[in-house]
Amino acid sequence: MTARGQREFFTVKTVSEALTGFRPARRTPVESVSLDDALGRVPAEPLRAPHALPGFARATVDGYAVRAADTYGASEGIPSYLDLAGEARMGRPPETEVRPGTAVAIATGAPLPPGADAVLKLEHTQAATPELLEVLRPVTPGEGMVRPDEDAAPGAELTRGGRPLRPQDLGMLAAAGIVEIPVHTRPRVTIVSTGDELVPAETAPAGAAPGGPAGLPAGAAALPVGQVRDSSAPALAALVREAGGEPHFAGIVPDDREALAATLRATLTLKGSDPSRVVEGSLPESDVVVVSAGSSVGARDETAAAIASLGEPGVWCHGLAFRPGKPTLLADVGGVPIIGLPGNPRSALVVFRLIGIPIVRLVSGCTDPPPEPTVRARLARDLPSAAGRLDVVQVRLSGDEAEPLFGSSSLLSILTAADGYVVVPEAATGLAAGSEVEVMLYR
Amino acid sequence: MTARGQREFFTVKTVSEALTGFRPARRTPVESVSLDDALGRVPAEPLRAPHALPGFARATVDGYAVRAADTYGASEGIPSYLDLAGEARMGRPPETEVRPGTAVAIATGAPLPPGADAVLKLEHTQAATPELLEVLRPVTPGEGMVRPDEDAAPGAELTRGGRPLRPQDLGMLAAAGIVEIPVHTRPRVTIVSTGDELVPAETAPAGAAPGGPAGLPAGAAALPVGQVRDSSAPALAALVREAGGEPHFAGIVPDDREALAATLRATLTLKGSDPSRVVEGSLPESDVVVVSAGSSVGARDETAAAIASLGEPGVWCHGLAFRPGKPTLLADVGGVPIIGLPGNPRSALVVFRLIGIPIVRLVSGCTDPPPEPTVRARLARDLPSAAGRLDVVQVRLSGDEAEPLFGSSSLLSILTAADGYVVVPEAATGLAAGSEVEVMLYR
Repeated sequence: MTARGQREFFTVKTVSEALTGFRPARRTPVESVSLDDALGRVPAEPLRAPHALPGFARATVDGYAVRAADTYGASEGIPSYLDLAGEARMGRPPETEVRPGTAVAIATGAPLPPGADAVLKLEHTQAATPELLEVLRPVTPGEGMVRPDEDAAPGAELTRGGRPLRPQDLGMLAAAGIVEIPVHTRPRVTIVSTGDELVPAETAPAGAAPGGPAGLPAGAAALPVGQVRDSSAPALAALVREAGGEPHFAGIVPDDREALAATLRATLTLKGSDPSRVVEGSLPESDVVVVSAGSSVGARDETAAAIASLGEPGVWCHGLAFRPGKPTLLADVGGVPIIGLPGNPRSALVVFRLIGIPIVRLVSGCTDPPPEPTVRARLARDLPSAAGRLDVVQVRLSGDEAEPLFGSSSLLSILTAADGYVVVPEAATGLAAGSEVEVMLYR
Repeated sequence: MTARGQREFFTVKTVSEALTGFRPARRTPVESVSLDDALGRVPAEPLRAPHALPGFARATVDGYAVRAADTYGASEGIPSYLDLAGEARMGRPPETEVRPGTAVAIATGAPLPPGADAVLKLEHTQAATPELLEVLRPVTPGEGMVRPDEDAAPGAELTRGGRPLRPQDLGMLAAAGIVEIPVHTRPRVTIVSTGDELVPAETAPAGAAPGGPAGLPAGAAALPVGQVRDSSAPALAALVREAGGEPHFAGIVPDDREALAATLRATLTLKGSDPSRVVEGSLPESDVVVVSAGSSVGARDETAAAIASLGEPGVWCHGLAFRPGKPTLLADVGGVPIIGLPGNPRSALVVFRLIGIPIVRLVSGCTDPPPEPTVRARLARDLPSAAGRLDVVQVRLSGDEAEPLFGSSSLLSILTAADGYVVVPEAATGLAAGSEVEVMLYR
């Protein structure tokens, strides 16, 4: 037992050390996707404008294309007069020219005729006769229009590399005619659940009534004593999706070193330690492996031993100064990150959100992750903590007050009742009731 | 022109009036999806526990199941002694009982044997002999364990109705064996683009070189003067997806009242005004219609006229006290919301984010939308505004400073350069440089 305790703490790291120091080399390759499939995908490189945008000078108001100099000095009291010389049509090259002393009717979005350098707003004009326009205010060159390269000059960066594409980015790419977009493939994240007590979520005992008890939902009935449904795998799969990954479930493995090692070997399909290797043939290869471990200390040791048996000195840390993430294991096997999570469902989800999501993003080339929702609130109760250890505490919000939710790490209900969580940083020895905290909100 | 101006302002509303007052009756029906497909989906009703969770008393620490009373008074100096009576095995019903004066070895997660009411932590014990346990600290009843219904009592609400399902909610449903989940179908949002100048995003002029100019991306070349690629539709489709909807593109319609009316009729497939009607047969029916209008004032009037021609007095407002959303049109045709957006791409996206996303959510039964990321920052420059009008201004963040980005509403580059936006509310007449503002962050 003493030996076990020592081993657990031998390679303990802080959360900040893990976030900055654990950097497996694996990156997913680049594929081409259509605009329709590009939301949230991560371009490897900046995408640049192939030509000027909008590509021609365009009116931005409804009115008249003019030479600005022809309007100088015009006022409601002493209007200027311009000859009306036709209309600039939407969607086609201008057929008329704006010569000195003339104006051409134009709608928002239409191309400026040659000779014009500004657009007079409709409401600053008045038709004197069908052929003559009264100008009631002057315009300066460039007013009421955009230049041919005002949205983007040729070669201008339209979207950044490393940042998931946002709706407006897709609009910009569409405007430039870039409809096939080179992005990192979604990382394939394999989830392995271990635990002799686990059964798949769809399990109900044989012979269960087709309906539930009166007033309760039909379908699911209590399991034999000792068994629990695997709740972590579906929740982890959802977190993987939120991080832009593609979850794959490798099944439930018993608490047995050999069985786990065999599953890891199969899912890694190790073919050498070149991290840039691309998926070959039909063998599914993992970009990230997540082991949702059995709950006991013994089971955690089995995970470490199974990884050690893969034949690479891959364990980066076995233990984080993190509540509730102490038993977290991080390993790098041939560039592929392996994340060993605590067995308690709540701890597993907390650790994966804090440590796992950044790893999935790293592997997918996402260097500029999207912002997360937060809110400032006042702590309703003291939060004790130990210096040197980071604590994540779920809270429920009520007005501007954050009420901490305490309870066993095995209880998922604390996570479902929570609106978000508070981080007590490593340097703090706790937070006093009444202090202002930043609550990370669950979406 | 005066008449046109009057018509535009006849049914102008404020943004708050639109957000609270425009409530078309349409709601999408409920379908059943698997856990794998349930992330972000919206249950119509709360989902309740069919049985107690975890369903049996479980150890939450590694150690020994005991009767707490047997440990009272124990200390390192004067330990108590208990007879070791076997082991509680993971995943199966306990085979031994904890009788007075005995202890049963147990791992985290295993079911408590009958007779036990607490679990002693391993580190508070010491094996005196293989049959005898030294107890170094007392435990109280309930310590080191969870009760059979501590995660959920039978019938307890596991997830709320009207709130998109979060990863932890899926975990909780999995724990309860609820693997088919009744949720609202994704609303089908039809996007119609209008404008004589618009061509599809994939358009490049005939005869374009297969590669781009040196150093520029290949594929897209400049269009004939006057034409612009439809950038709004792909960006709006992405916003629809972010709101949980399913975008469908009805194509580009010329600036022609009859053509738009025909498209609207086809996409609404009006079959009466019962808003609860379910999709029948293979006719695609819209739950929300978005018209991304031509840019000119004339085009906006055509949208209103086309809606009026559907034969229902559906226009709720034609004009919002909103910059850059003034020309927004909202209509309710047989319970189906129609959103007429400004023609300028930037305005269209700003309006859809502020007004359209809540409408898509409303129709999908989402009464409790996920939180949005925000950050407090200091304005780098004055933001002028008019009282009674809401302004949305894009900003770029640099440290804790928010730099407003100004420019024509036709420029998408302002949206792609922005980190987020500031709302100048209706009551304000502007915001001074240096004032603290809340920046809504783009994800």
